[in-house]
Amino acid sequence: MAAPRVVVQDKTLRTLVSDIFVAAGTNREHADTVADVLVWANLRGVDSHGVSRVPRYLELFEKGEANPRPAIAVDELRSAVAVVDADAAPGPVALALAMDQAVSMARSAGVAWVSVRGTVHTGAIGYYTECAARYGMAGLGIVAGVPNMAYPGGTGAGVATSPLSVAIPAGRHPTVLLDMATAVIALGRIAQHKAAGMPLPEGAALTKDGRPTTDPAQAVIPLPVGGAKGAGMSLVFEMLASGLTANPIVSAFHGGTPQGRRHRQNAVVLAVDVAAFLPVEQFRGIVDATVDAVKALPADDPDRELLVPGERGARTYAERLTNGVPLPKPLVAKLVAHAAALGAPIPEGL
Amino acid sequence: MAAPRVVVQDKTLRTLVSDIFVAAGTNREHADTVADVLVWANLRGVDSHGVSRVPRYLELFEKGEANPRPAIAVDELRSAVAVVDADAAPGPVALALAMDQAVSMARSAGVAWVSVRGTVHTGAIGYYTECAARYGMAGLGIVAGVPNMAYPGGTGAGVATSPLSVAIPAGRHPTVLLDMATAVIALGRIAQHKAAGMPLPEGAALTKDGRPTTDPAQAVIPLPVGGAKGAGMSLVFEMLASGLTANPIVSAFHGGTPQGRRHRQNAVVLAVDVAAFLPVEQFRGIVDATVDAVKALPADDPDRELLVPGERGARTYAERLTNGVPLPKPLVAKLVAHAAALGAPIPEGL
Repeated sequence: MAAPRVVVQDKTLRTLVSDIFVAAGTNREHADTVADVLVWANLRGVDSHGVSRVPRYLELFEKGEANPRPAIAVDELRSAVAVVDADAAPGPVALALAMDQAVSMARSAGVAWVSVRGTVHTGAIGYYTECAARYGMAGLGIVAGVPNMAYPGGTGAGVATSPLSVAIPAGRHPTVLLDMATAVIALGRIAQHKAAGMPLPEGAALTKDGRPTTDPAQAVIPLPVGGAKGAGMSLVFEMLASGLTANPIVSAFHGGTPQGRRHRQNAVVLAVDVAAFLPVEQFRGIVDATVDAVKALPADDPDRELLVPGERGARTYAERLTNGVPLPKPLVAKLVAHAAALGAPIPEGL
Repeated sequence: MAAPRVVVQDKTLRTLVSDIFVAAGTNREHADTVADVLVWANLRGVDSHGVSRVPRYLELFEKGEANPRPAIAVDELRSAVAVVDADAAPGPVALALAMDQAVSMARSAGVAWVSVRGTVHTGAIGYYTECAARYGMAGLGIVAGVPNMAYPGGTGAGVATSPLSVAIPAGRHPTVLLDMATAVIALGRIAQHKAAGMPLPEGAALTKDGRPTTDPAQAVIPLPVGGAKGAGMSLVFEMLASGLTANPIVSAFHGGTPQGRRHRQNAVVLAVDVAAFLPVEQFRGIVDATVDAVKALPADDPDRELLVPGERGARTYAERLTNGVPLPKPLVAKLVAHAAALGAPIPEGL
């Protein structure tokens, strides 16, 4: 049985989260960025990456693994590449800044690659790639993190469920927004199956001993999508994101030291300025025509609509912007309790 | 039953292929490039993308879909982006040139994105990304082509089996080389199963009517890896590769005109200059340590070695460089017949 739900307006949620972060020690600008990224995920229907993550950030602050007052350094290495040294800033703060930097550099260079060194929990990375699309650019993003996914032939967690996101600006259609883990199933989805008492699909996850399971209570290690393909993508994302920032995660994790096992992430964001190639309106027209062609494909079930990446999320966004975000009651109660404990104001009606 | 095999040295194979291409009208430089790319695939064990493709190139020349004497134009749009207008050059010619261009621009800008407009059959794209790695750079490549893969919910070919390749320079280890289609199984692999009379795995392909099948004789439409994930990657690759070059393939194909259905491909290659970020030797050390960590993971079968992307290919390459490339006898006979028909010299011993 799923918990009873309560509907909260996005603005209320953003205010609550921002106030919690300020009370936890961040400045208002950073708090607003974190709140915007988390509530965006809820609006898009990606509740596993939404405000339910707030307690985890607070825990990371308490343990000293995340830094509420980071001294973030941006180093423009060459005309089209930069590094953001995040000083353990929350992922939303580091990645939003990195994508701003990429968009700005891509305006002159045509493309820009910005690496992020040493952040924590980047959230739904579609947020950052969609930012690039708002400027008429294509946005790409990858993240590397602590191993939590199986590697083909191995029994335990070998590599991370490192996501890839690509955002493409469209015209009539919403931004085409791919945002996928390299795992068959995200850890958050396993938790949702467990809460709902629903078995997992075959081939999605392993037990802690490395045995295949469909029992969400036993499943702790998601399998890579396509076996060697998903695992290979995750591994090269680690090499690109962590290698170029000289901050390896996978090798340090398997080294087994407590330092090597602490939570941290590296990332890369890339902006490609469409206007360097062709008029943006012409590009949007091509993207629209491509979306139209895919949606008009003969369907195997005439009652089922063919969807393009991000389409469902865009609809959920529009719907929840109007009707509010449905959240489990215990989650809202937990957030309110955190706010109270930190002395943060609690929005009316919560 | 597989056909009987004959072993040919890579040099002999390269000479044969290059002479065939010169006889078919290309200049020697282009012929050598095509031969090098195809024979590289055979050396790596990717026989589906090797010299077996020569007859297809000759057919494309005859139909006027590929151009043996292309007027290729390179347009440096900004400091980090360029377009190679391929004028229907064979893919190896266009993509090798594009990666050279990307490496050269990345030396100063740090990263470079080079789009390729209107080429044909790009071969095994790991060849081009590995070129970047030889210069101490990370190489990335994607290709867009004519729809030949299922789209979730659709019955026919919706999008292409568009590949992704990432090459990462290592130190002690071979270059880490991911080169994957966005399909569960490549069309060439289906043909190999058919030739060997072996059933396909479940969930790999559909019949021409869109029904799931494990019969390689009935299988014509591969399924995307991970369903919406592979299909989504393919779709955004189309938008990036074809959209930015104003040369849409997917929408034109589904428009149903003969022009829209003709074979052609677009691509993107990306080079990232490691030296812009950290000393290349330090990076190679991080990559080596990461490879070591993955290979040392506890294995579920103690007799089975854990492999990283490109490792098996690098071993096959070393082995075949010494012992020669085993090829089906009928294929060698076919290549010799093509050479004879075109008046090209036939290397001794074939």
